[in-house]
Amino acid sequence: MLDATARGVFTIAATPFLPDGGLDLDSVGRMVEFYLARGATGLTLLGVMGEAPKLTQAESLAVIRRAAEAVAGRVPIVAGVSSPGFAAMAELARGAVEAGAAGVMVAPPASLRADAQIFDYYAQVAQVLGDTPFVLQDFPLVTGVTIPVPVLLKIFAEIPSCVMLKHEDWPGLDKIAALRRAEAGGARRISILCGNGGQFLPEELGRGADGAMTGFAFPEMMAGVTAADAAGDPDRARDLFDAYLPLIRYEAQPGLGLAIRKHILALRGAIAHPTLRRPGPALSPDTLAEIATLIDRQQARLDSLGT
Amino acid sequence: MLDATARGVFTIAATPFLPDGGLDLDSVGRMVEFYLARGATGLTLLGVMGEAPKLTQAESLAVIRRAAEAVAGRVPIVAGVSSPGFAAMAELARGAVEAGAAGVMVAPPASLRADAQIFDYYAQVAQVLGDTPFVLQDFPLVTGVTIPVPVLLKIFAEIPSCVMLKHEDWPGLDKIAALRRAEAGGARRISILCGNGGQFLPEELGRGADGAMTGFAFPEMMAGVTAADAAGDPDRARDLFDAYLPLIRYEAQPGLGLAIRKHILALRGAIAHPTLRRPGPALSPDTLAEIATLIDRQQARLDSLGT
Amino acid sequence: MLDATARGVFTIAATPFLPDGGLDLDSVGRMVEFYLARGATGLTLLGVMGEAPKLTQAESLAVIRRAAEAVAGRVPIVAGVSSPGFAAMAELARGAVEAGAAGVMVAPPASLRADAQIFDYYAQVAQVLGDTPFVLQDFPLVTGVTIPVPVLLKIFAEIPSCVMLKHEDWPGLDKIAALRRAEAGGARRISILCGNGGQFLPEELGRGADGAMTGFAFPEMMAGVTAADAAGDPDRARDLFDAYLPLIRYEAQPGLGLAIRKHILALRGAIAHPTLRRPGPALSPDTLAEIATLIDRQQARLDSLGT
Amino acid sequence: MLDATARGVFTIAATPFLPDGGLDLDSVGRMVEFYLARGATGLTLLGVMGEAPKLTQAESLAVIRRAAEAVAGRVPIVAGVSSPGFAAMAELARGAVEAGAAGVMVAPPASLRADAQIFDYYAQVAQVLGDTPFVLQDFPLVTGVTIPVPVLLKIFAEIPSCVMLKHEDWPGLDKIAALRRAEAGGARRISILCGNGGQFLPEELGRGADGAMTGFAFPEMMAGVTAADAAGDPDRARDLFDAYLPLIRYEAQPGLGLAIRKHILALRGAIAHPTLRRPGPALSPDTLAEIATLIDRQQARLDSLGT
Repeated sequence: MLDATARGVFTIAATPFLPDGGLDLDSVGRMVEFYLARGATGLTLLGVMGEAPKLTQAESLAVIRRAAEAVAGRVPIVAGVSSPGFAAMAELARGAVEAGAAGVMVAPPASLRADAQIFDYYAQVAQVLGDTPFVLQDFPLVTGVTIPVPVLLKIFAEIPSCVMLKHEDWPGLDKIAALRRAEAGGARRISILCGNGGQFLPEELGRGADGAMTGFAFPEMMAGVTAADAAGDPDRARDLFDAYLPLIRYEAQPGLGLAIRKHILALRGAIAHPTLRRPGPALSPDTLAEIATLIDRQQARLDSLGT
Repeated sequence: MLDATARGVFTIAATPFLPDGGLDLDSVGRMVEFYLARGATGLTLLGVMGEAPKLTQAESLAVIRRAAEAVAGRVPIVAGVSSPGFAAMAELARGAVEAGAAGVMVAPPASLRADAQIFDYYAQVAQVLGDTPFVLQDFPLVTGVTIPVPVLLKIFAEIPSCVMLKHEDWPGLDKIAALRRAEAGGARRISILCGNGGQFLPEELGRGADGAMTGFAFPEMMAGVTAADAAGDPDRARDLFDAYLPLIRYEAQPGLGLAIRKHILALRGAIAHPTLRRPGPALSPDTLAEIATLIDRQQARLDSLGT
Repeated sequence: MLDATARGVFTIAATPFLPDGGLDLDSVGRMVEFYLARGATGLTLLGVMGEAPKLTQAESLAVIRRAAEAVAGRVPIVAGVSSPGFAAMAELARGAVEAGAAGVMVAPPASLRADAQIFDYYAQVAQVLGDTPFVLQDFPLVTGVTIPVPVLLKIFAEIPSCVMLKHEDWPGLDKIAALRRAEAGGARRISILCGNGGQFLPEELGRGADGAMTGFAFPEMMAGVTAADAAGDPDRARDLFDAYLPLIRYEAQPGLGLAIRKHILALRGAIAHPTLRRPGPALSPDTLAEIATLIDRQQARLDSLGT
Repeated sequence: MLDATARGVFTIAATPFLPDGGLDLDSVGRMVEFYLARGATGLTLLGVMGEAPKLTQAESLAVIRRAAEAVAGRVPIVAGVSSPGFAAMAELARGAVEAGAAGVMVAPPASLRADAQIFDYYAQVAQVLGDTPFVLQDFPLVTGVTIPVPVLLKIFAEIPSCVMLKHEDWPGLDKIAALRRAEAGGARRISILCGNGGQFLPEELGRGADGAMTGFAFPEMMAGVTAADAAGDPDRARDLFDAYLPLIRYEAQPGLGLAIRKHILALRGAIAHPTLRRPGPALSPDTLAEIATLIDRQQARLDSLGT
């Protein structure tokens, strides 16, 4: 099962669809190989960027099952199970673990405000999930819920099944540092992987993050930056990061980001079709041209780095 | 199937649970009889007040099936099928109709803003639902989406499967009047039933609504007020309404409302247990005492009206 | 100056305008007499319902000055000074006190989330305000900020210049009870006056509130209910309340409420014109007719109570 | 006065404060020279990034006056006058023009939703502002208001005093393209300057924007990119942009961005102190170190470009 020592790059996996909107389960295996070949040390399925809310529960489990078959135990799988009610969350988590997930991920519902409410919510989540280890997704931009450092520390201290923080407090770099300082003072250490499309990865690693959990369409960026940082060469990490940054930025466009990502994944052969399930945006010809320019320039820059 | 001539009182039905949080399907039949005996001309299942988001899909369908058996065709059933994605909406709607629903209800997702976005969303909904007639739930306080009158008229004009408006634009009385004026000018007439816990029922009827779709724990209020109004006695309608108003107001408390409603439904024998599925609030002793006082005073007032 | 023993009815005063949108300072004196004659024990100026954000700062101070002249020390005046920045808040508060205010009122900015943020904000407010006593306005429906009971207690304990809570946690009755229980256990007692248009006044008094701070257009309702409750006759308090409730409810309509209130205040001669400053809604003929009906029925009901 | 032919770089100016929070008017002149020397073709004062809501009205006018003296007619000044009420907006706009502003800027209030509401709001704004030309600020991330293209076109067509769009629909590149296509089809052409911290400047120019209106602490970036693009060398524009991008991204951190910007402006001698008026964040030592690293790397990159 997933535990607090996890590190590296957990890629947020896309969910592949056929042009008619049906699940493209055949692409799942191909996509898994694509991610693993580019350095993924874990996979996260059915997050917002996996279009989870657009799937039926049966489809969700089918995706996990197919991905788990393809992974065949090489890396752990985390499945998003955020739900408005605990019954659905419990059912989906149980199904996910049976299908092969090593852990699940839970974002807070938008209604939470006060410190005590947030702690109580995760205490209930832990009770609902039983033995299943879980990732706390801290993503205020989307959830509207701000989780202060003392609340996170209380959750980590009192809820052993919370083993990882998916940090994307936009960017909340000082939050990572505060958590690591608290650990230096005796608090329980948990894994911190960062999201936000990778936009702040060098700084996140510098502050003490264990890696990335995000789905940028060139996962070798996350792997390369993390490896260079781990090798004690932050300047090399930044050189690499900067080469990808124009596209990272472009893919981070709200509303369009996932469509851009799937377009590139399809271009790169990771999935068969760039299709998003409805409702979802289409990319304009201008956008497609900009992507092409950015990829060309990115490759030239990487070439000049001798990558 | 549901059509645009529907009127009267569509009661928003609670979902009964056992004290341990399991579904209490045995209470469903009893609750149905309770509602029908008090004047319901329709039932709405799995709205927000039916704790729909806390049910698994299998549970949702089980509730509809049991309710449909109990209703046995006496009145139409509407099932809430709002979902973040069309795949889940389609699946749930298909299941609901198979289980016996005469129509479904769809609220807009919180992300909609511009007029054209809202129309396009419902055009897609209609395509997804096929022949199934649907109710448009207009509830800005909860959805955050404001639907202007011209957009509603365009939806009604161009989407024949939209047969009813659940109006709860808090309270938006002038909106009802504007829609009815447009119909007088030739626009297609659809059914308008009003929510908001019944707080504005006399005025809503006065503006042209066809009745109520709400779940106040004394559904005889909605039936009585609607009947008196239909009988041409608005003063009698208001006398009756005023007798219930202190409790209507009390039940309308955000956050606590459903717990209060289920407590009263259990008191009245409509369901076996007042249990809400977690996460949900508990009622304090002070609250329980206030409810008791309000019910006593309500009964005294009704007695004095000779009801 | 305002202190923690304040009780009774602090009326939220309207700001009178001329038909062309100019300030109607001549109406201010008349309105003050109207409120005092109907039992106000204090006045609150420049809240949201006083259209404060639509005034220039010079106009705000002119209103306070004129009201203070009219009040001539008979009751304390509270002035709303919520501002996005402390410089404007300090300037307005200083001006308000010079103009005759006995205290000021501050609602939290919408950006506050975590417990510590809220406390820190009010600690800074107290520093900015110096000796001026202030009212904390707790109004989550409008501000989006939820203030938990422990945070309120910490503010009351550590910030002596916070002397009153304007409670409108919609309705948050258990919050009042929790605060009063804490006081019974030794916490500092402060004044609690309740808003929400008076919709929950009997219950608020039953839970331990010291009165009302709201602007319902029949302030004699708040005075009468509070007096009956203080006289140990909660049943009489409820009889009176129930007589006004249909109109209380009607005036509580979001968006339209202030226009309804000013229309009635003008009808009753409290102000010369019902004008709202732009942007503001106009009342439809249907709405005006409903108000007339509600006032007639209210009077009949009061007559039958022998009021 | 400002007109629809404006182009280039309108720098969003910081508001300089003394360490004690007082206005630092002496820095205003220095800052103006700093911006003009680096290619500003206009200045925008008192936007959100100018801490406008933290100033009293007298302070706001003092800042405009001092800036206008320093500019001495070399470039136009735009002053932010967004206000919850039209009285304050009118007063501030009048004062701004008297103090030397060539135009004003108005963002929509958060309450606007429907297409017609948005148009009506700007029609009222135009009436309130009279002859003063204004910039419409389209910034959904902060205002919560989405303005569809047809609404913008209607505003531009019917309101001649609206001469410029400050575009920051995060990033909304297709919106720029759609507006320019409409102009090609006969719609009135207005100036489009883009915000968003400059994060999408090359693409914005490619889609037809006339330049930037943003406050990145190296305004020579906006000037250089805009000039290269205007010179028909988009590749050069991108090379330059990419060199600054790591810092552009870093400065775009929500919550911290303005503090980072003022820190750099103080480092560069544009203002005497990096002080933000309270409430505002402080920068951690980690953050200061990251900024230093990013500036060093940026300079190295620019050197390698032969800039």
